[in-house]
Amino acid sequence: MKEFLENVRGLMPLVHNITNYVTVNDVANVLLACGGSPIMSDEPEDVEDITSICGGLNINIGTLHKTSIDGMVRAGKRANALSHPVLLDPVGAGASVFRTNTALKLMEELKLTVIRGNISEIKTLYLGSGTTKGVDADIADAVTEENLEESIVFVKSFAKKEGCIIAVTGAIDLVTDGDRCYVIRNGRPEMGKITGTGCQLSGMMTAYLTANPEHPLDAAAAAVCVMGLAGETAWKRMEDGDGNATYRNRIIDAIYNMTGEDLEKGAVYEVR
Amino acid sequence: MKEFLENVRGLMPLVHNITNYVTVNDVANVLLACGGSPIMSDEPEDVEDITSICGGLNINIGTLHKTSIDGMVRAGKRANALSHPVLLDPVGAGASVFRTNTALKLMEELKLTVIRGNISEIKTLYLGSGTTKGVDADIADAVTEENLEESIVFVKSFAKKEGCIIAVTGAIDLVTDGDRCYVIRNGRPEMGKITGTGCQLSGMMTAYLTANPEHPLDAAAAAVCVMGLAGETAWKRMEDGDGNATYRNRIIDAIYNMTGEDLEKGAVYEVR
Amino acid sequence: MKEFLENVRGLMPLVHNITNYVTVNDVANVLLACGGSPIMSDEPEDVEDITSICGGLNINIGTLHKTSIDGMVRAGKRANALSHPVLLDPVGAGASVFRTNTALKLMEELKLTVIRGNISEIKTLYLGSGTTKGVDADIADAVTEENLEESIVFVKSFAKKEGCIIAVTGAIDLVTDGDRCYVIRNGRPEMGKITGTGCQLSGMMTAYLTANPEHPLDAAAAAVCVMGLAGETAWKRMEDGDGNATYRNRIIDAIYNMTGEDLEKGAVYEVR
Repeated sequence: MKEFLENVRGLMPLVHNITNYVTVNDVANVLLACGGSPIMSDEPEDVEDITSICGGLNINIGTLHKTSIDGMVRAGKRANALSHPVLLDPVGAGASVFRTNTALKLMEELKLTVIRGNISEIKTLYLGSGTTKGVDADIADAVTEENLEESIVFVKSFAKKEGCIIAVTGAIDLVTDGDRCYVIRNGRPEMGKITGTGCQLSGMMTAYLTANPEHPLDAAAAAVCVMGLAGETAWKRMEDGDGNATYRNRIIDAIYNMTGEDLEKGAVYEVR
Repeated sequence: MKEFLENVRGLMPLVHNITNYVTVNDVANVLLACGGSPIMSDEPEDVEDITSICGGLNINIGTLHKTSIDGMVRAGKRANALSHPVLLDPVGAGASVFRTNTALKLMEELKLTVIRGNISEIKTLYLGSGTTKGVDADIADAVTEENLEESIVFVKSFAKKEGCIIAVTGAIDLVTDGDRCYVIRNGRPEMGKITGTGCQLSGMMTAYLTANPEHPLDAAAAAVCVMGLAGETAWKRMEDGDGNATYRNRIIDAIYNMTGEDLEKGAVYEVR
Repeated sequence: MKEFLENVRGLMPLVHNITNYVTVNDVANVLLACGGSPIMSDEPEDVEDITSICGGLNINIGTLHKTSIDGMVRAGKRANALSHPVLLDPVGAGASVFRTNTALKLMEELKLTVIRGNISEIKTLYLGSGTTKGVDADIADAVTEENLEESIVFVKSFAKKEGCIIAVTGAIDLVTDGDRCYVIRNGRPEMGKITGTGCQLSGMMTAYLTANPEHPLDAAAAAVCVMGLAGETAWKRMEDGDGNATYRNRIIDAIYNMTGEDLEKGAVYEVR
């Protein structure tokens, strides 16, 4: 996986992010940490120019505003025209009709490279409706060792139907293009106590897609491994009295310091 | 106070936040640190669905936009209909006519469980007008040992008039339902050098209200003690060269690690 | 330079920020760290009241929205009427027509005290058009020891033409009023791996301008030295495994702890 990481550091891809205001600062710092370069813009009049100077586009519907949807569509169409990778992070799909419908609209109007979300969000998009417990995956719906087989079948069939990569993150992560499916077991449960690790991953994954255009599936999987491995590395540096704020910083620090060798050694995955 | 903290950790209340973009990330991480779960949404078309899946609503008017006011009212009415606790943090009331009038409008249109602000903001709402020195309390107007008696009389009468809990935070914190008044002496002055400790407290307090529906006054006071005690615990971990950025992280870490026992031992308050 | 820092600590200037949602939290914490006090507001109906209770105005066009432009103009005109310093940070000027034109419009409609940006942004404004590689300076266009002479001539002539102070930050920083030019060599290249150090500097610089109204050029230069020196001090505290997230916190901490003596000893500059 090492080359995917090294390509990001070498090419420093500029990523256009239309993302929520909760986690945006961490997304920017994670993009810098992994070797990319972030730019944020959601104003419809601004997004086409911004996307044009970037290499990839990350669309995240957390704290979605009606006025931003037009920006998402315009930026996405421009990115499609330029053959830039486009990632959709459907934060909270299933939590409201507005978010679900917006995600479905974006899937319809844009050619997406990756949809990355938790299992509830992905199931919502598959079904075209549904509910989630807020922005976090319904535990009953988590991918587990017990339901792994059927989960893989599900994500593969969704990826095939949509013609894009589906990345489901949780305790076990699945990344598939419909044909091959990466099953990734990096990460720690305490990462769920930090806001926005999913958003951060989406930003970083867009940088990986941008710097590795020939291998989108493997690049997306590599980004998932980097995030999870950073969570493990960061955890080792935690001291007595440290909590989720320090853990957040240490994870970004771990991404900043991770080498291709580290990733090669630490990534825990199989391909099915 | 221990049970109020433990109920939050046990019930993991989902809190809907309509809050400012300055401190929103910290609000989310504090909610996770205390055992709750945050979701942010201010788009009028989105808020009713989001509030419906949550247990409580936190409305904060810092960086207020005209378009968000409708979202605040809609979310608040839905929360009222569902008997969810609703907290108003009137950031900057008194600093502008727009903010003052919006806070007054929300007080009129919604049934609020708690109004939490600094003394200048609370006085502004009491008077229906006035000015503050920005978002921080006018020092001349602070609650002190000297003016404690009259301050308690003031907040009690305001709470009675409004029919809701009033929480005034500063060097000495007052939390009252018009009948009993908690006088809390936790915290450190250096907390004022971190942006958004008030916003963080409002988010956390909403989680406490949500997880302790039978005891809103005590739960609100417990949240104030948690914040102040976390400020004390965090301060003990400060090292030479550390400043407000590290202090911010250590406070969130301290909330993350605080147990019911810690709170029981560390809370400094009397009830008048 | 010591008096400029001490005036900020003594006068605690309240700074109105109309700034982007990516770096706004850090801007607020840096303002508190240096001794100022931040308030954020971009709603057109709110900004005039807010500016009126402040001492200075910081306008930053990152994540610009069409609706905010009116707020920027209204706040700027009120600040001009009150003789408050007004700083413009033209984030991404050159990256899109929308940003470039907005920056030019603000320059035309407002009396600016300082324009602070990277060399690409400043060149764009000088030319009235152009492109940049996102929000970071084009390396080919950096101020270097080799092109220092001509760079100074350029910024001096632009400052004279605009009748305001121009501050170009990068590896070498230039701050000029058209007559004298500070050439500043504090800072570290790793600061470029943190999002928003430029935005943070703009916020802090506005506090310096506000607290030192008789010496805007020297105060602006002092703020640049503080930021760079904080980057150096913070770097010395970095430990094995630390990365850009920790570095971000340590820089804010260093600003928090910096004394006038520290600045006097650590500032590396010449005046040409």
